[in-house]
Amino acid sequence: MKLLVATNNLHKLEELKPLFSEHELLRPIDLGIHDFNPEENGRTFFENAFIKAEALYHLAGRPVIADDSGLCVEALHGRPGIESARYGSDNGRLLSAAEKNSLLLSELENMKNRHCVFVCCLVLYYGPQRFLCVQETLEGEIGMAPRGDRGFGYDPIVYLPRKAKTVAELSQEEKNRISHRGKAAQKMAAILGITPIEGTV
Amino acid sequence: MKLLVATNNLHKLEELKPLFSEHELLRPIDLGIHDFNPEENGRTFFENAFIKAEALYHLAGRPVIADDSGLCVEALHGRPGIESARYGSDNGRLLSAAEKNSLLLSELENMKNRHCVFVCCLVLYYGPQRFLCVQETLEGEIGMAPRGDRGFGYDPIVYLPRKAKTVAELSQEEKNRISHRGKAAQKMAAILGITPIEGTV
Repeated sequence: MKLLVATNNLHKLEELKPLFSEHELLRPIDLGIHDFNPEENGRTFFENAFIKAEALYHLAGRPVIADDSGLCVEALHGRPGIESARYGSDNGRLLSAAEKNSLLLSELENMKNRHCVFVCCLVLYYGPQRFLCVQETLEGEIGMAPRGDRGFGYDPIVYLPRKAKTVAELSQEEKNRISHRGKAAQKMAAILGITPIEGTV
Repeated sequence: MKLLVATNNLHKLEELKPLFSEHELLRPIDLGIHDFNPEENGRTFFENAFIKAEALYHLAGRPVIADDSGLCVEALHGRPGIESARYGSDNGRLLSAAEKNSLLLSELENMKNRHCVFVCCLVLYYGPQRFLCVQETLEGEIGMAPRGDRGFGYDPIVYLPRKAKTVAELSQEEKNRISHRGKAAQKMAAILGITPIEGTV
């Protein structure tokens, strides 16, 4: 099935490809939709994923998969959370990933509690009032400095004690096996019966 | 799979059984849950189905299917809609189906526009942030008097011109093939890959 992904973020698309390897993933731009930028004014990851999926479905008229994800830092009461993409934006100018990571490290300076959770909500939207939602998490600790050059976004500052690596130091395959996005896609596939995974549904 | 149905309504359960024939359907009461009655304060069929599914999942700890359904009458601006079960209730005493049907017929007395839509939203809730939603409709006309003794609820007053029958005059098999609840279950099954239906997903 051709599945339209409600993102123009190439990193997300590349990460989703092996997770939906039985489908051909398309971006809005592949269908000539150049200005896909709906207002993400939901209160949760689910609501924002839903907003993106529904908006793109109405433009394209075909099944859409949307991803809303972010990093919730315990000491910051869950921030940046659903604002992760727009964290620290200055008069509408979005910060680069490196700038966001620096800002977050400075916010956490001298803080002992560095616990954080990556969250990914995937919504597969077949049409009005027909959708599947799966949300998953990856727990970690905000490191003291960025490390690793794989992945994207906050990956270099999220340290996984049980791996002794940051998310940006994982191979793509390893990341997809354990990450918030990878687990959400695996559970979605299990629900859809594509790749049944023992004990997940 | 044992699927818990978030209802104590035996009519709904009986109607869902052939639609989920590969699963064993259980009611809350079958698990010793006698007071399952969450507050349905959502604004949509989806929100109310979700409220019921989530509440029961937290009591039972296993996958739940919830149904929220109702009848929306065009001339009444969509009423009774999500209030269909509680329509005309008097100081908390719920009306019987026959009383609700009489009340609705009296509200529509002398009205020419009798168009109505049955809506059913099914939510299959696997666990926190893992759920599938499918909503379907059945369009009809409010008849001039109740007719038929099958089905339940508003079925006797919803007339289907193309069948020249009320919903309460359909066999259970025919109702499940074309009804709001039947179509929602069929599409859900198609999404889940149980019974693929051409052109539905």
